[in-house]
Amino acid sequence: MLIFALLLQTAAHSPAVTPKSPGEIVAAAPASDWVDIKPDDLLVMQLAPDRDGQPRRVTIQLMAPPFSQPWIANIRTLAKAHWWDGTSVNRVQDNYVVQWGDATEKKPLPAGLLSTSEKGYVSDWRLDRSLRTSVVDLSTMSGLDEGPKQTDPYVAGGHTLHWKGWQLAAGAEQAWPTHCYGMIGVGRNLSPDAGNGAELYTVIGHAPRHLDRNIAVVGRVVEGIENLSSLPRGTGSLGFYEKPEQRVPIVSIRLASELPETERPHLQYLSTESGSFAAYANARANRKDAFFIVPAGGADICNVPVPIRRKP
Amino acid sequence: MLIFALLLQTAAHSPAVTPKSPGEIVAAAPASDWVDIKPDDLLVMQLAPDRDGQPRRVTIQLMAPPFSQPWIANIRTLAKAHWWDGTSVNRVQDNYVVQWGDATEKKPLPAGLLSTSEKGYVSDWRLDRSLRTSVVDLSTMSGLDEGPKQTDPYVAGGHTLHWKGWQLAAGAEQAWPTHCYGMIGVGRNLSPDAGNGAELYTVIGHAPRHLDRNIAVVGRVVEGIENLSSLPRGTGSLGFYEKPEQRVPIVSIRLASELPETERPHLQYLSTESGSFAAYANARANRKDAFFIVPAGGADICNVPVPIRRKP
Repeated sequence: MLIFALLLQTAAHSPAVTPKSPGEIVAAAPASDWVDIKPDDLLVMQLAPDRDGQPRRVTIQLMAPPFSQPWIANIRTLAKAHWWDGTSVNRVQDNYVVQWGDATEKKPLPAGLLSTSEKGYVSDWRLDRSLRTSVVDLSTMSGLDEGPKQTDPYVAGGHTLHWKGWQLAAGAEQAWPTHCYGMIGVGRNLSPDAGNGAELYTVIGHAPRHLDRNIAVVGRVVEGIENLSSLPRGTGSLGFYEKPEQRVPIVSIRLASELPETERPHLQYLSTESGSFAAYANARANRKDAFFIVPAGGADICNVPVPIRRKP
Repeated sequence: MLIFALLLQTAAHSPAVTPKSPGEIVAAAPASDWVDIKPDDLLVMQLAPDRDGQPRRVTIQLMAPPFSQPWIANIRTLAKAHWWDGTSVNRVQDNYVVQWGDATEKKPLPAGLLSTSEKGYVSDWRLDRSLRTSVVDLSTMSGLDEGPKQTDPYVAGGHTLHWKGWQLAAGAEQAWPTHCYGMIGVGRNLSPDAGNGAELYTVIGHAPRHLDRNIAVVGRVVEGIENLSSLPRGTGSLGFYEKPEQRVPIVSIRLASELPETERPHLQYLSTESGSFAAYANARANRKDAFFIVPAGGADICNVPVPIRRKP
């Protein structure tokens, strides 16, 4: 009996004529379509073991330039200073976010943090021509400058795209990363404060894209998000844990480049500029594999995540 | 210190001139804008207590007519037969679904189940004129037949709306419920099988709207979804639990109308035909409360959930 399991079933069980599923397309992508994530762009968060003594590790990829670079510089500084060691996960709000940092809000910060500005939540789209090449547009599956665009409900006249391994939204003059599942943002106080990068959260529910352009987005979880998304929900306001003992201790957060070679994660993303990615995105938007009877004919940006894998 | 917590902060902490947040608008809605959910439309799922002995209850609201009625009739029949008692939650796939039912796939079904057809995944939109009144369209915040429409990426030329307490998508001739967070669908085998309603799942991640029109949607979780969304992820294919002892026992599933009055949940939804809802939807799409610096100017249907509360 097959109930619902067929959604992601492999080709071996389907007739030869059935179009490939997104997963099958990704599995068939040549090695040349995969891009190594550099150790200096990976953060490794080690949580305290769970109740059964099982280790819990979460790996984070930092956002690519030109986005959010002052915060990312600060995150590297904080990691090198071992600043997060001994802090905790303090908030788990269902269908929203998991947030971590210093619950006392009194831990001294390391020297050398850059100042930040809310102007940095977006990047100038027209000036940075490098952003305008080799993107996958969900409506046309072709270059950004061709054909009709799928509009983005979160910005009048704007649209969404995949670029250099990331999901983005863009208006006429600016581009910014989107608050999709697993993306990581920077906690802050009221404007004009823009946060320094010490207080972070990740999305564990439907994309809260109203946060786009209102918060710095600095990366995404690329492995182990289940160690955050399956944590008990906090029962305090906004999902904060009410009792200190409910917080989940953070043993350490390190740049992968500072870990011994044997402890480093070796991960790759599927190049969003590859033919494999274009075929994958097209299949996500037009499911024609065995289970489906009506292909949607489109998809929203957060329902086309960038495939990540361990390097073979 | 306020870090990020201000996102949903109450009015007491904001200047008087700050526009209300969605939560403040809902809190201020008059009693007449709230609609009681009938006990015959509520299912109460009792899971086995957690490791700390805490009870775990999940309350489900069944979808309104004309949608998915044969499956919903079957679900009432299964509940009245106590068919789910002793079954289990068998699958928890991160950013996707939690699925429950009979893991043995051999439990005899009760008599009287209706046959189902995949034609029932959608409703005829043109014939059912009752669907065309009093809806909230996200792009115009006005009636369905007025003004420009926010297009839905999941159907060419289609759009999304709120109607009688539910989130819907609609094309030129059909309407259907959307696979938003917490929505419940019916597991099935390959087409033309359409499932009978005994095997159910709920969405615990970003809306998998490619499933729309491909599966019967029969309701949504209205209370206690954290008892499903925070379960350990299954490590088998598609998130199925690999060991029988990992499954979460279902003690019982009952229609609220069959429970003693003292055990019945008393829940209400905010009428989607009310002025309060229109103001709430507008605020969700245009956040101008204290934390925000750039209102999005729009929202996708799944980012505007229908508010639910316990009856005061």
